[in-house]
Amino acid sequence: MPAHPLPTKIGVVIFPGFQLLDWAGPLDAFNILSNNHTLSLCTIAYTLDPVPTQNFMQDKQGSQFSQSMVPTHTFENAPDDLEVLLLPGGLGARGPGSDAWMKPQVEYLKRLDLSGKGSIKWVLTVCTGSEILARTGLLDGRRATTNKRAFNDVKTQHPNVDWVAKARWVVDGNIWTSSGISAGMDLAFAWMAEVFGEETAQFVADRSEYERNVDSGNDRYAERWGAV
Amino acid sequence: MPAHPLPTKIGVVIFPGFQLLDWAGPLDAFNILSNNHTLSLCTIAYTLDPVPTQNFMQDKQGSQFSQSMVPTHTFENAPDDLEVLLLPGGLGARGPGSDAWMKPQVEYLKRLDLSGKGSIKWVLTVCTGSEILARTGLLDGRRATTNKRAFNDVKTQHPNVDWVAKARWVVDGNIWTSSGISAGMDLAFAWMAEVFGEETAQFVADRSEYERNVDSGNDRYAERWGAV
Repeated sequence: MPAHPLPTKIGVVIFPGFQLLDWAGPLDAFNILSNNHTLSLCTIAYTLDPVPTQNFMQDKQGSQFSQSMVPTHTFENAPDDLEVLLLPGGLGARGPGSDAWMKPQVEYLKRLDLSGKGSIKWVLTVCTGSEILARTGLLDGRRATTNKRAFNDVKTQHPNVDWVAKARWVVDGNIWTSSGISAGMDLAFAWMAEVFGEETAQFVADRSEYERNVDSGNDRYAERWGAV
Repeated sequence: MPAHPLPTKIGVVIFPGFQLLDWAGPLDAFNILSNNHTLSLCTIAYTLDPVPTQNFMQDKQGSQFSQSMVPTHTFENAPDDLEVLLLPGGLGARGPGSDAWMKPQVEYLKRLDLSGKGSIKWVLTVCTGSEILARTGLLDGRRATTNKRAFNDVKTQHPNVDWVAKARWVVDGNIWTSSGISAGMDLAFAWMAEVFGEETAQFVADRSEYERNVDSGNDRYAERWGAV
């Protein structure tokens, strides 16, 4: 069983235009886990202002369809003893002007020791969260996956990463990356099985009435979205 | 195709201790839909203060693992032209003292015309959201389902509802109710297929890389949690 003591301190980084389910899928699995394991969550953002999900495609369509989350910490005062870091993706990291407004997030990630040798033992990314992580250079030479509709763009932007097209999720050492949006739930349960044990992971999935995809290679979306 | 004009105005009611994925699962499907269909969202609560997910089981375990969402409207100033109403459930509706603090939510629901003949054409509930709706009396004599671990308790509390134990979701007229937590995503896609068409629903699911359960009777959690 666990090579490390069971982690208790989880952090998640959010930014305007993050994808709701990238964030909420894994977090709700951890919510249920936290009923029986003592866990704490820090929600980290640029400022303490609520962070909206609204994105440029909704703007273009004329949709005002946003959910706003309240951070608990900023990049300046986030605790330095987090053990797990979760990175959702989303269109906010990809739209016009996004390089500028993603800079604080990327700078924060660069300041952290994400090697697995510091306090943070695991980094979990969902969807294009891996693209944000790739901006730090940490994924260079490592295996990772991402959203399959964005796959070819992400691959072009970060050619030194060993991007795996057909994968629901990929584990490379302490870095766990998932495919698009819903795949984050399968990643969360796979990670929970690895760290807290399979019995706990399946109990939580059953509580959530969630049908896990337990085969990391089972990914029909790679074909669906032209990543292979 | 649609018997009604396509809806554009969606409202969701939240309360302290709501289950994150009950809310985020359907809403993220609608987020993606709103990239190509013009939609607006109102997030409605007792006050405009952020609404936390923290629940009594986490309190008991010593977990501080909460996510806080910002409402856009209160029960007093919510718009009266909503076309779809979404009700998540969660432990906040079930813990000690919950009857008192759920009263404003139930009173708000009682004031609305949820018959399908007013502005609101559809009511969608996830998990124990159906139990909250049952408190209004609206489900009496109607078919509905709910979270399978809570099923027997909910059935005892509301004996005049025709509770369906083995169902991923149930449709009775304009009222769509789902089983526990993750089942809300299948309900959302089933509703989207009915209202916006199957092609749109599957496109959104593919964008989310979500494997839909399209059989409303396929529900192994009824056995798993002793509802049958």
